[in-house]
Amino acid sequence: MRYAFYYWNGIQGRGEFVRLAFEEAGADYVDIARQPGGEAEMMRQMQDEGATRPVFAPPFLKAGELLIGQTANILHYLGGHLGLAPGDESGRLWAHQLQLTIADLVDETHDTHHPIASGLYYEDQRTEAAARSTHFRRTRMPKYLGYFENVLARNPAGGGHHLIGAELSYPDLSLFQIVAGLRYAFPVRMAALAPQYPRIAAVHDLVAGRPRIAAYLASDRRIPFNRHGVFRHYPELDGQD
Amino acid sequence: MRYAFYYWNGIQGRGEFVRLAFEEAGADYVDIARQPGGEAEMMRQMQDEGATRPVFAPPFLKAGELLIGQTANILHYLGGHLGLAPGDESGRLWAHQLQLTIADLVDETHDTHHPIASGLYYEDQRTEAAARSTHFRRTRMPKYLGYFENVLARNPAGGGHHLIGAELSYPDLSLFQIVAGLRYAFPVRMAALAPQYPRIAAVHDLVAGRPRIAAYLASDRRIPFNRHGVFRHYPELDGQD
Repeated sequence: MRYAFYYWNGIQGRGEFVRLAFEEAGADYVDIARQPGGEAEMMRQMQDEGATRPVFAPPFLKAGELLIGQTANILHYLGGHLGLAPGDESGRLWAHQLQLTIADLVDETHDTHHPIASGLYYEDQRTEAAARSTHFRRTRMPKYLGYFENVLARNPAGGGHHLIGAELSYPDLSLFQIVAGLRYAFPVRMAALAPQYPRIAAVHDLVAGRPRIAAYLASDRRIPFNRHGVFRHYPELDGQD
Repeated sequence: MRYAFYYWNGIQGRGEFVRLAFEEAGADYVDIARQPGGEAEMMRQMQDEGATRPVFAPPFLKAGELLIGQTANILHYLGGHLGLAPGDESGRLWAHQLQLTIADLVDETHDTHHPIASGLYYEDQRTEAAARSTHFRRTRMPKYLGYFENVLARNPAGGGHHLIGAELSYPDLSLFQIVAGLRYAFPVRMAALAPQYPRIAAVHDLVAGRPRIAAYLASDRRIPFNRHGVFRHYPELDGQD
């Protein structure tokens, strides 16, 4: 099946978690908004008054007759179809639970630079962003990273570099993206924390080294991190702590 | 099956979305932390070093051998088992998509009173809370409420009071809780907005009038709203706009 994927052009953002799944699986997908005229096509799709199941926001996916919104929901669907999730109900629920926890971390990361309103510029909420980032670095980063390190440690079948069982699944790809994003946004803090989370670093390296992911990361399909996405580098928000 | 449900005693919080599903279905469930010794039992469960699939935070559910975390994931599982979700894949994904959008609204509501850090008191972030609440009231509330009103309008089979098809599903229960919570937290703003969202009010009233839900709301199993949960009433954060 050819998948039509809709997400903002110009940023990795939440869409990147889905792109990584497509790329790892070698799936046939079109990143609609990155095609000529594609942004207009995405807006048309979002504003389609005939749609009986309207989407709230990108990303969303067209898979045959299905139109699926919400990042974690898209991955829940694709996980089975792309061979990136366990086959049993228990495993699928566990994969989704991990992905939803990753989504929570993504939300909190976004709010480090936008603690007052996503509709305002960062420059209009710098003071509050500094306060929120301090708590994020000191409290929330260790809490989330410690959790995923713990999940890895308790999965002996994964050898410390798979979150679920002995094989790669979509939460591994998302954990890679979390590490890449946090290293970009908070390089000083991540360097200070690194020794405590060796298994998370191993997942990052394993995913980065998968042939299709390595090719993707080296291609122009991988949009560089920048100051428009979820993970943003503002040196004044980083710190060793 | 007897379900064991784990969530903080003393607040509705995120757990309430699951409690409403149990109550509507007349399910056999135990709200563990509200039993004598139950909070200690919940902490034991969370800190169990033998758990191969640790939970990040409450709520979580034990269903036979399954241990399921994340509110929306729990409802995704229960929806099918309790007869509160469509039977087809497309409908289940749509229900989950709506629930994840409700979860995003819940997160944003929480951050109106905790924009800097969930680990700090409200009193330590009052100024920032006022700024975030203003944007929430003016921009985010209409965006989310308008979205759900639109979903209701585009589902003629639901007669304007069901989000999906012609029958009650768990997102209807959650939308009831959103309305109840926002009316508690932002009574002035909700009164001003009410005329624009008649279908959402109809869902609220229909759910509140379901016999089992009405009995639940009148019982002491329904914890009153208070200043410890997600929905909190601070008059200084409300406004007509």
